[in-house]
Amino acid sequence: MTDKLHQHRALFPALANKTYFNYGGQGPMPQAAIDAVVTAQVQTQQLGPFSNAVYSWMNQQIATARNSIASHLHVTSETITLTENVTVGCNIAMWGINWQPGDHLLLTDCEHHAVIAIAQAIRRRFQVEITTCPILAADNPVDVIAQHLRPNTRLLAISHILWNTGEVLAVDKISQLCRANKALLLVDAAQSFGSMPLDLNQLGVDFYAFTGHKWMCGAAGLGGLYVREEVRKNLLPTFVGWRSVITDTQGQPQDWQPDGRSFEVATSDIPLLAGLREAMVVHEQWGSIQERYEQILKNSEYLWQKLQSLPEVKCLLTSPPQSGLVSFQLTNMQHQKLVNYLETQHNILTRTIANPDCVRACVHYFTLESEIDDLVAVVREFCV
Amino acid sequence: MTDKLHQHRALFPALANKTYFNYGGQGPMPQAAIDAVVTAQVQTQQLGPFSNAVYSWMNQQIATARNSIASHLHVTSETITLTENVTVGCNIAMWGINWQPGDHLLLTDCEHHAVIAIAQAIRRRFQVEITTCPILAADNPVDVIAQHLRPNTRLLAISHILWNTGEVLAVDKISQLCRANKALLLVDAAQSFGSMPLDLNQLGVDFYAFTGHKWMCGAAGLGGLYVREEVRKNLLPTFVGWRSVITDTQGQPQDWQPDGRSFEVATSDIPLLAGLREAMVVHEQWGSIQERYEQILKNSEYLWQKLQSLPEVKCLLTSPPQSGLVSFQLTNMQHQKLVNYLETQHNILTRTIANPDCVRACVHYFTLESEIDDLVAVVREFCV
Repeated sequence: MTDKLHQHRALFPALANKTYFNYGGQGPMPQAAIDAVVTAQVQTQQLGPFSNAVYSWMNQQIATARNSIASHLHVTSETITLTENVTVGCNIAMWGINWQPGDHLLLTDCEHHAVIAIAQAIRRRFQVEITTCPILAADNPVDVIAQHLRPNTRLLAISHILWNTGEVLAVDKISQLCRANKALLLVDAAQSFGSMPLDLNQLGVDFYAFTGHKWMCGAAGLGGLYVREEVRKNLLPTFVGWRSVITDTQGQPQDWQPDGRSFEVATSDIPLLAGLREAMVVHEQWGSIQERYEQILKNSEYLWQKLQSLPEVKCLLTSPPQSGLVSFQLTNMQHQKLVNYLETQHNILTRTIANPDCVRACVHYFTLESEIDDLVAVVREFCV
Repeated sequence: MTDKLHQHRALFPALANKTYFNYGGQGPMPQAAIDAVVTAQVQTQQLGPFSNAVYSWMNQQIATARNSIASHLHVTSETITLTENVTVGCNIAMWGINWQPGDHLLLTDCEHHAVIAIAQAIRRRFQVEITTCPILAADNPVDVIAQHLRPNTRLLAISHILWNTGEVLAVDKISQLCRANKALLLVDAAQSFGSMPLDLNQLGVDFYAFTGHKWMCGAAGLGGLYVREEVRKNLLPTFVGWRSVITDTQGQPQDWQPDGRSFEVATSDIPLLAGLREAMVVHEQWGSIQERYEQILKNSEYLWQKLQSLPEVKCLLTSPPQSGLVSFQLTNMQHQKLVNYLETQHNILTRTIANPDCVRACVHYFTLESEIDDLVAVVREFCV
């Protein structure tokens, strides 16, 4: 088993020279994914770079990637928009609503500042009211959200896995609340895509924005957005381009594309699609997403337990996280100093989070127990 | 001279196995640019992919690329926003205006359908009036534009080089018209960036949207937008993310970035920056942008003259283009058939344009006379 794991880890060159706990920031690319990107670039140059042959090949690449993603999310490929990152996906959903002055947009106090920034930009433009519900310290986030939904709430934006604490929200229950309230639900899936099994129809979400470069270990610069079919026809395209439209024989835009492409814009880095697909294949060869998720939970429980046992450390969650994110605070609150010390002195990579002020260490399915032991040993040594 | 040119062409692998005339669609990448992208990806994996070290290195990459681009445009780096492509740049400018119902947006009849699509999306949202001025058949486009500007025109969107005919617009004169009319000027620079000398202050534009993957021969997926400093403070950020904002100690967005970053969103493909920079170096090693532009004009005049001499061919422009784009029509109007025939039978790559219905062949500074001869010979043969 350990041999198999070591062999598998050897597929990721970034893992060779460090002890890595930043999967929630960016995942290490398998060499096969890097190679696939290069091969696709060589192929582009070989066939074109601009020709009928390239165009056919590119469309094939796009269709295959869209299908792989859709299949992973258990939805049809027509619901998938390809984007540069998770935040563009959130922008498409949030700007696409036909906001009227006085409409209400509800966030939680655990959203990434990217989503807060989008909300602020929208408020300035459309006189929308924004409020934030406090789930960070709540025993039951679903109840808190229920209390904060209003008759005029048009959209609720939440994260599937809170990027600061690692808590997993009960998205299925929250989507029911939203449906009953006639509010739309946007889920920031930055930390869930690639780390846990996902069935979007079962979750009942309206929008699900994700990225390929974190837990799925694709290249940075490629993500996507799921838009529920019934919602799509009322979602206004905002940033658009040649990929959004169908043109007539005069080359004039005639209509929006009848699927997720209506929210795509223009030229992007097509070779990255092959990289993400290859990364997904590498993971599948190790095990199903269910098996990988179970291993992530074993690893995060192991890390959580060991950290909990240190008197100078307090984990943010009071029980083992249901995700790979383990966030903790030191009694002395020297979080940035610890992260710098870990990186510069021990080549152990973690990060700080500003709110709540803490250190975040992420474990993937291929994290080694010995890596966790090393991290905990240095944290212990640092605290003394 | 020819030896030097052949040596230079050998730096671009895409040129080795075909006769290429689609520089206006996508430029061939120099091998050094492809290698720079790969090296940057390897470096990312080596240092991280997510760490303090990567973050410093990334910021260095971004600053260097922004400076190279700014220097090429003779502006300060604070005016440059990095984007995924030219169309995102157009979206940022067009959506960033604080549109009021009844405002007027003026386009020309030669704009790319991406820009038309953006205008349509904006009209639907803000009840803006859009009109189109007919410059395609005009002797003097500046006069036509002058006649179509209105007191309520907030924005004029034009192309520096018309993508269909290859005509170069007198942007300096048009910007004076706009200034006098208190309208803003957006220039689509898809065909000018990398093909001609550019001094944006001299041109007097408010917005200049460009891409690195056409005449500059960088990778697809990287472009940018220049926003004049005086205009920037009134331009509303639309799609935003962590790159747009300054955060406070709690990690909350405090303000927009005080420069072009306020319109940037989130994670993108950083290695592409090194590719574009390397491509720019390769071009500079051959000659200055002024020298390259002069060679482009010699090559396009040569192609234009030879096509003009064919009785079955009519060039769209009645004098040699002041750009590398040469568009022409056949008496029999079998344009798609000719493009397919050129590609599949002779490995000569051109494209059709829908409006006006024509074939477009682009020449770069490194295009060979013999390539032009080959193209013209096949066109002649096809027409018989």
